Amino acid sequence: MEAELKEMLDDLESLGRSLPDPSRNASIDKLRSRVKHLSELAKFAPAHRSKVKDMSAEVVDSNPYSRLMALQRMGIVENYERIREYSVAIVGIGGVGSVAAEMLTRCGVGRLLLYDYDKVELANMNRLFFRPEQVGMTKTDAAVQTLSDINPDVVLESYTLNITTVQGFETFISSLKNKSFRPDKEGSGVDLVLSCVDNYEARMVVNQACNELNQTWMESGVSEDAVSGHIQLLIPGETACFACAPPLVVASGVDERTLKREGVCAASLPTTMGVIAGLLVQNTLKFLLKFGHVSPYLGYNSLKDYFPTMEMRPNPQCANAACLERQKEYMLAKPARDAAAKAKMEAEAPSAAECPLHDDNEWNISVVDDSDTKRTDAASSVRADALPEGLTRELPSADEFKNASASGSADTNIDDLEDLRKQLEALNS
Amino acid sequence: MEAELKEMLDDLESLGRSLPDPSRNASIDKLRSRVKHLSELAKFAPAHRSKVKDMSAEVVDSNPYSRLMALQRMGIVENYERIREYSVAIVGIGGVGSVAAEMLTRCGVGRLLLYDYDKVELANMNRLFFRPEQVGMTKTDAAVQTLSDINPDVVLESYTLNITTVQGFETFISSLKNKSFRPDKEGSGVDLVLSCVDNYEARMVVNQACNELNQTWMESGVSEDAVSGHIQLLIPGETACFACAPPLVVASGVDERTLKREGVCAASLPTTMGVIAGLLVQNTLKFLLKFGHVSPYLGYNSLKDYFPTMEMRPNPQCANAACLERQKEYMLAKPARDAAAKAKMEAEAPSAAECPLHDDNEWNISVVDDSDTKRTDAASSVRADALPEGLTRELPSADEFKNASASGSADTNIDDLEDLRKQLEALNS
Repeated sequence: MEAELKEMLDDLESLGRSLPDPSRNASIDKLRSRVKHLSELAKFAPAHRSKVKDMSAEVVDSNPYSRLMALQRMGIVENYERIREYSVAIVGIGGVGSVAAEMLTRCGVGRLLLYDYDKVELANMNRLFFRPEQVGMTKTDAAVQTLSDINPDVVLESYTLNITTVQGFETFISSLKNKSFRPDKEGSGVDLVLSCVDNYEARMVVNQACNELNQTWMESGVSEDAVSGHIQLLIPGETACFACAPPLVVASGVDERTLKREGVCAASLPTTMGVIAGLLVQNTLKFLLKFGHVSPYLGYNSLKDYFPTMEMRPNPQCANAACLERQKEYMLAKPARDAAAKAKMEAEAPSAAECPLHDDNEWNISVVDDSDTKRTDAASSVRADALPEGLTRELPSADEFKNASASGSADTNIDDLEDLRKQLEALNS
Repeated sequence: MEAELKEMLDDLESLGRSLPDPSRNASIDKLRSRVKHLSELAKFAPAHRSKVKDMSAEVVDSNPYSRLMALQRMGIVENYERIREYSVAIVGIGGVGSVAAEMLTRCGVGRLLLYDYDKVELANMNRLFFRPEQVGMTKTDAAVQTLSDINPDVVLESYTLNITTVQGFETFISSLKNKSFRPDKEGSGVDLVLSCVDNYEARMVVNQACNELNQTWMESGVSEDAVSGHIQLLIPGETACFACAPPLVVASGVDERTLKREGVCAASLPTTMGVIAGLLVQNTLKFLLKFGHVSPYLGYNSLKDYFPTMEMRPNPQCANAACLERQKEYMLAKPARDAAAKAKMEAEAPSAAECPLHDDNEWNISVVDDSDTKRTDAASSVRADALPEGLTRELPSADEFKNASASGSADTNIDDLEDLRKQLEALNS
C-alpha cells in the first residue's frame, strides 16, 4: 500500500506540472495532502517480522526466542530448540484450542495442524484470541491469519472440516499419517494430538483415530457452567482410553447429543479457558521437551481453586476394539520396557552417588536417612494392596481379575513398579 | 480511511470535469483506478464493532455477551451486568498484566486503568497478547489499541509512567483516587488493584499506595525460571501486607535490585503466565461478582502441577506504618463486623432449614449426621490451640503475643471464628 501511495504522489506531481492554470494546482495540492495523510495512516498497518533460521539465546530485545532459550541456561530444559522438530495437531479451535495454538506458536513449535469447521461469531468474543474484525471467517482461516503474523517460523496446516463425518474422518487420519515434515519420525506424522472439542461425539472420534494410529493425545474440556475444567493424558494401551471409563451421561443412560439443545447457550469465561489451555500446553511442553512430570489427569474447580489429580488404567473390557489391541501390545512389550528401565537405572546410578544433590547448603537443612527402613519393607515382599490381618476381600482385586482375563500370559501381569523394585533389590544385594 | 478515499474520488471527479484537455483526463483516470484499488485494500483493515448499551442474555451469534450472561441462568453469578460498574487498575502490562487486561476486557469490565513505562520488544513475543507489528510502541498504547478493538464498551485509561519515581507515584495515587467514573463509590475510585509487576521495588510501591488508600489488591508473580508462579489477595489490616512477610531475598540480606543484573535474561513461558493471569482474573471475578471462594494465596508449580494455598495474618510488628494503621482500624471495627455477621446468619438460618440441599437424589447418596458430636465439642469451650494434658509452651502463643501488644483492647482480640461460634451456640440454646 505504501508503494502504491508513493506512485500516486509522483502521478500528481507530473499532472500538476502539465497544468497551465494555477487555480487547478490548488486541487492538486489538496489531493497531494490527502495522499500524504493516507501514507501516515498506512504506517500503522501490520509490519511482519522475518523468519528466523536458528533459535538464538542471545539476550537482545530483537530476539523473539531469548526468553525461551533461557530455559536451557536455567536448567529446566536440556535442548529447547528441539521444539522445532515437533508437530502438534489441535482439534477444535474454540476457546481452549485457539489459545493453545497461540501458546505453541509463540513457543516456536515446528508445525501445527488445526482442525475446525465452524465460523467466528461475535458471541465468541468473551474468550481470548479471535477479534471482532474476524467475524464471518472460518476459525481455521482466522487462526492462520493471526498465528502467521505472530510467528512466521511455525508451519501451519489448516483443515476446515468436521471430523465426525465420514469424509472428515478420512482426511483427519491421512493428515495425521503424513510424514513429509519429518520423514524419519517413528509412528504417525505428529508428536501429539490435543483434543479441544466441546462435545462427546467429537471426543470419541479423536479417541478412535488415536487408538487406531497408536497416537498419544491429550484431552481437555470445560464445564457448561464455565467454572471448571480438566486435562487428561491418553497413551493407547498404557492409560485408560476415552471409551474405557464412560462419562456420567453414559452411566446415566442419557444420550449426550440430546443434551445439546437448540437455543440453550452454555456459559463460558476467558479465565477458565485460559487456565485450561495453559495447563494443557504446559503439559505438552513437558511431554515434548522431557522435563517435569506430565499429569495423567488434572482437574480445575475454579470456585474453590481446587485441582484434583488421578490416574486411570485401561479397562480390559473396553468396548473399543483398537484400545484392546493396544492394551495387548503394551503387555507384550513389557519385558523390553523392563530391560530398558534397568539399563537406564544402571547407567544413572553411579553419577548420582558421586555428588550431593545441593552443593551449597546456606540454611543447614539435613534430611534423616530412612533408606534402611525402606529396604526392609521391600525385602519382606508385602504387596502394596495387601489387607491388614483378619480382613478378607468380598470381590476379587483388580489385579486378580486382570490375571484371569489375560488368558495365560501371567508373567507379564506383575505390577510394573513392584517388578522394578525387585530388580533394583537384586542389583543392590 | 474509507471516508478519506471516497472524498478523494469526488475531488478527482471535479478536477476531471474542470479540465479541457482529454489527454489529462487519462491521468485522472489512472489516479481514480489507484484510489479504487486502495479502497479495496482498506476493506481488509479492522472493522470495529459498535458499542453495546445493555448486556443482553439473548442467545444469538451476534451478541458478544450471551455466554457471560449465561452465568446468571446457570446459577453461578447473581447479577453479571454489575461488572460494568467496576474499575480495575492493572500495574505492569507485561506477560501477566496484558493477558489479565484482555480477559477483563472480554468479560466487559466497566473501566480499566493500565500502568507501564516500558516499550514492546520482539523479545516479548514468547508471551501472549502483543504482536510483532507493535514493537516500539509503549505497552500502554499497544494495549489500548488492541483492547479497544476487542471491546469498545470498556473505558480504558492508560498511564505511561514508572510508579517507583516520585512523580509517577503521585500520578498513580491521584488516578486511583479519581471517582469520576462512579461518584457514589465508597473509598477510592477503583474496586481492585492487580499488581503484575516483575520486581520487588515496584511491589513495595503498590503495597504502600494500597495501604495508604485502604485499597484491596491482588499480587501476582512468576519465577525467573518460568515454571512457577502465584497470586495473593491483600486486604489492608485484615491480611498480611506485602511488607508483613518479607520475601527470602530480604531474609537473606540480599538487595533484590542487585539481582536484576544487566544482560541476565530471565526465562518466561506463555503457558505459566497465561495460567497465572487466568487464576488472577478468575479470583478478580469471584471478588467483584461475589461468587465462589476468593483464594487468599494460590501457588502454581508447573513441573508437578501442584497448587499450594495458605493464609497470612498481618504482622503486628510490620515495618509499614500505614499497615499498622489499617490493622488498628480493622480491630476496632470488629464489634460492628460481628453484629453484621450475626444479623446475616439469623436472616439466612430459617430458609436453610426449610428445604433439603439437593431435591432430586438420583444416586441415593446419604450423609451421616454428626452434628451432635460437633455441638458437644463446641459446648466444652476448648480453645482450638489448647495443648494436650501435661504439655506446656516454651514460647507465648501468637494470640497471647497479640493481646499484649494491642494495649488494653482485650475484648476485641478474641479469635473471630471462636467468637462467632459462641454467638451461634447462644442462639441455638
